[in-house]
Amino acid sequence: MNIENIIREKQIDGIYVINRYNIRFFTGFSGTTGSLYIDREGRKYFFTDFRYVEQAKRECEPKGVEIIKTERNSLETVANFIKKTGAKKIGIEAKEVTLEFYKNIVEKLSGIELKEIKDEILILRMRKSIEEIEMVKKAAEIADTAYSEIIKEIKEGITEKQIAAKLEYIMKMNGADDKSFDTIVASGYRSAMPHGVASSKKIGNNEFVKIDFGCYFNGYVSDMTRTIFYGDSISEKHIEVYNTVLEAQLLGLKAVAAGVKANSVDSAAREYIASKGYGENFGHGLGHGIGLEIHEMPYLSPSFETILEENMLITIEPGIYIEGFGGVRIEDDVIVKKNGCEVINRSSKELCIIRRGGLN
Amino acid sequence: MNIENIIREKQIDGIYVINRYNIRFFTGFSGTTGSLYIDREGRKYFFTDFRYVEQAKRECEPKGVEIIKTERNSLETVANFIKKTGAKKIGIEAKEVTLEFYKNIVEKLSGIELKEIKDEILILRMRKSIEEIEMVKKAAEIADTAYSEIIKEIKEGITEKQIAAKLEYIMKMNGADDKSFDTIVASGYRSAMPHGVASSKKIGNNEFVKIDFGCYFNGYVSDMTRTIFYGDSISEKHIEVYNTVLEAQLLGLKAVAAGVKANSVDSAAREYIASKGYGENFGHGLGHGIGLEIHEMPYLSPSFETILEENMLITIEPGIYIEGFGGVRIEDDVIVKKNGCEVINRSSKELCIIRRGGLN
Repeated sequence: MNIENIIREKQIDGIYVINRYNIRFFTGFSGTTGSLYIDREGRKYFFTDFRYVEQAKRECEPKGVEIIKTERNSLETVANFIKKTGAKKIGIEAKEVTLEFYKNIVEKLSGIELKEIKDEILILRMRKSIEEIEMVKKAAEIADTAYSEIIKEIKEGITEKQIAAKLEYIMKMNGADDKSFDTIVASGYRSAMPHGVASSKKIGNNEFVKIDFGCYFNGYVSDMTRTIFYGDSISEKHIEVYNTVLEAQLLGLKAVAAGVKANSVDSAAREYIASKGYGENFGHGLGHGIGLEIHEMPYLSPSFETILEENMLITIEPGIYIEGFGGVRIEDDVIVKKNGCEVINRSSKELCIIRRGGLN
Repeated sequence: MNIENIIREKQIDGIYVINRYNIRFFTGFSGTTGSLYIDREGRKYFFTDFRYVEQAKRECEPKGVEIIKTERNSLETVANFIKKTGAKKIGIEAKEVTLEFYKNIVEKLSGIELKEIKDEILILRMRKSIEEIEMVKKAAEIADTAYSEIIKEIKEGITEKQIAAKLEYIMKMNGADDKSFDTIVASGYRSAMPHGVASSKKIGNNEFVKIDFGCYFNGYVSDMTRTIFYGDSISEKHIEVYNTVLEAQLLGLKAVAAGVKANSVDSAAREYIASKGYGENFGHGLGHGIGLEIHEMPYLSPSFETILEENMLITIEPGIYIEGFGGVRIEDDVIVKKNGCEVINRSSKELCIIRRGGLN
């Protein structure tokens, strides 16, 4: 499947694209301002203003994209261009255009029928090219390296925010363009929150510290989670919860292969967690696609029946969250292969206990 | 002017708000998921799912906002609530709702007329409360402190990205929640780009280094720019360009006062730059409002006639950019006062020359 097929299947003459990840996917343009028209033959025309024309030429022309200069914030040039192609009916991204923009484009494109495009491009983006996989691998390598550094910094009294700041700093010094989402550092009672963004809470004795983070490299993300135990005296329950999540994560990985349904991978991990009595404590999906965005299709959740294909990139990240006690999540980035998967992350997943005073 | 006045003036029964900065402005909610209904009497109802109910209660109830729990991603509860109020006509943010969301809400709110709201709430947000000003002051203080630290780190061979990474790290270690936009570090020929986000270029000898950055503190931003000269041998032209920008910045500050038009402040600086022969090299507006967002109303540009009012927060940031030579921008955050302004930033604006080997 490619974009020309979608255009023909939808019986339209072209698609006008404004989502910047979709634009980057088709053109390589890494900036934020511009829009793209793709015609029935798959020819790509990228519209941007004088501020970005040079960059667009450098980034997009090697991919066969034609660059067309517009006035700043103007739809005029785009609309006239599309009219001149003779298009009668074009697709627009219904989840992207705002009401104001829609009214504007309806007016400017008078005479051309607009058809709503929903997930079609996101579906195209699910299978990755070799180049895309290399970017994610590099982003994951930067995250792995940063993780090996940050666990040396975890000491009583350091705040979650300070850990997050150091982690992001190390990633950037190692070539990351940015964090790929707000770093989660959730310790002690906060580790029971699946999405506890780093707070000013200090790391205390005998606590789980859940760290979920990643970075951008050349537009592509990594996303990993490790949970360590800080303190001198770990309880049986901490060990049991940790090992249950770890086993579920390994079972999830084992279930991944091209041809398998996304929700059956989810069940492989979910059923194991339920069998250990923690079914109620795993309240999110097992994973999600990654690529240009931190969350993209496919989603690994009970309701998602997409069949996995070779070279999709997904996360496998089961968790157990117990209010008042704490929580554990373990997450790797994974390439779907013909008969299984390749785990990209290299960081150890064995229970890591950091005694008071720190690793050093 | 307040939101009740707007509702009455527009002859509607309420406004449904989805922009998260507008929501934070009215309710104090700092999360990302939820929506708000405000009725004719100014009563506020915040809708969110189980994940954010606790947080919403903590943040919004003290402001008199009622919290209503919804299913995840569901408009059903909101629509039923609005119908029950007896509303016949409500406002929605035309620049925020996507086409898909609009169709969904039209269906769910069948029988209720929707009226488009444009800049009305953004206009309300221009004048700041004492509490809002305090947040921006704190965010600016963190930026000032970080600047005094980072200039000690500027040495030949360090990359722009490394400077940005250190700067962001220092701000976070000092209490910032995040950077408020992608840090600009543009040196040498790159300093001629008004918006040159930090690249892997190394700082070289005899170059301008333009640093434009800021942070979030409790939801409010700071935004400052300083340009330093690195090297042993500064040219007359470098000094002239720098001092022209500095003088223009001081003239801009001098022109600020309640009752003055935004574009007349712009001209005060612009005319001076033009008189020195650099009119063509100052291609952007003199400044913009700051608050919950890094760019908000009012805009200080030739076409913006808004009259400044007490307690508006704006930036004053003239620049001169010369291709192949380099560029300078100097920017402060400023509070509009009755008879003038208060400059929030404390960092020196005198030409700072860092000799090779660095400040230390």
